[in-house]
Amino acid sequence: MVGRTGLAMTDNNTIQPASATAPDSSETQGARELLLDTASQIMREGDQVDISLSELSLRSGLNSALVKYYFGNKAGMLKALLDRDMVAIIRSVDALVTKDDMAPEAKLRRHIGKCIDTYYAYPYLNRLLMRLVRDSDEEEARRIADTYLTPLSVAYDRLISAGVKSGIFRAVDPQLFYFTVTGAADRFFSARLVLRHCYGQDTLTEELRDRYREHTVDFIMAGILARSG
Amino acid sequence: MVGRTGLAMTDNNTIQPASATAPDSSETQGARELLLDTASQIMREGDQVDISLSELSLRSGLNSALVKYYFGNKAGMLKALLDRDMVAIIRSVDALVTKDDMAPEAKLRRHIGKCIDTYYAYPYLNRLLMRLVRDSDEEEARRIADTYLTPLSVAYDRLISAGVKSGIFRAVDPQLFYFTVTGAADRFFSARLVLRHCYGQDTLTEELRDRYREHTVDFIMAGILARSG
Repeated sequence: MVGRTGLAMTDNNTIQPASATAPDSSETQGARELLLDTASQIMREGDQVDISLSELSLRSGLNSALVKYYFGNKAGMLKALLDRDMVAIIRSVDALVTKDDMAPEAKLRRHIGKCIDTYYAYPYLNRLLMRLVRDSDEEEARRIADTYLTPLSVAYDRLISAGVKSGIFRAVDPQLFYFTVTGAADRFFSARLVLRHCYGQDTLTEELRDRYREHTVDFIMAGILARSG
Repeated sequence: MVGRTGLAMTDNNTIQPASATAPDSSETQGARELLLDTASQIMREGDQVDISLSELSLRSGLNSALVKYYFGNKAGMLKALLDRDMVAIIRSVDALVTKDDMAPEAKLRRHIGKCIDTYYAYPYLNRLLMRLVRDSDEEEARRIADTYLTPLSVAYDRLISAGVKSGIFRAVDPQLFYFTVTGAADRFFSARLVLRHCYGQDTLTEELRDRYREHTVDFIMAGILARSG
């Protein structure tokens, strides 16, 4: 196995970090990303956020000491993964509030679809967020909430207000609406085991993602649209 | 502390199981139920399904050896808790398919409301189910799915078909509909930490339960009802 990282392999197929000097920047980037990619794959395949450093090391071909080197500790790595994976949703939310030329209904349809796609790619996302909030001290939990949750809350508030004002939306509670959207996205893709055992499907297929995206956009939009007539 | 269980306390406030003879049936029932009640409270308050036997012992005032006595091991206790807590949903589902004098729309409204109430009482329910499926061997996972998931799947299928036939419902996929309902119920009450950190609420209040029940019934019914006109 030769590194996607460009770092030298030892006999036991792990990479030893240079203890005195930092790897050069391209190597750093490669190994750091490989650790995050591998952690993400393990969580996605195992349908959980509990991962062991020994499995991470085995799967990535990297020495687990690199976790300490790049992220300080496992919690630091999990935060870095959350940062990496929440980008798509946060950007989608920014788009919700800044695109003045798009109608609220079209914005919301696009956003819900984006949430489904993001949870398809990172089905552990909400559980990772909850875990980090739970295991952090008050200050860090607040920072995570401010970074990842408050922007959604603010955006939903503004978007729903705009839709209500123009008569398109019912006056639904933006806070409860957050749970409707996140719940729909999260619950589906975090339920691989249910699907496998109860419905005989081995899930996380693009076909199922597309069906569920359509189903969910239809459901949620029907719930928020004002009844015409 | 004198037992709700009727069993004798030792100096260190724990109950010693009788190693040779079984407690009489009333005592058995009391201590067994107290273990389940306490496990349930710990999961609900801590917003998680990972509980330690030492915390269970401390909180219940019962010796953790009783877990082995009544349930074989911790996994056995978790299964007994799932059995206890899924009753409300399974009964609600039975009612869905057997009440011939109730219209599909009314049945579904009642069922969704019941799901919200059940997850308010046992917010860990879906996570407990997932955990047990994940940690069980193939045969046991299949039994859990057959006991708790298949009845829901079958009931949704029949109910939605009946509603579609009478022109009340859109032809939504019953399988995806399962995730819509469970996701809405589960995600909300399993998100206490989000609410506390992001919205400054300490949740699981009856007021919030009632607001969310109304919100969710409205949303899901809007999604499944055929548009009139």
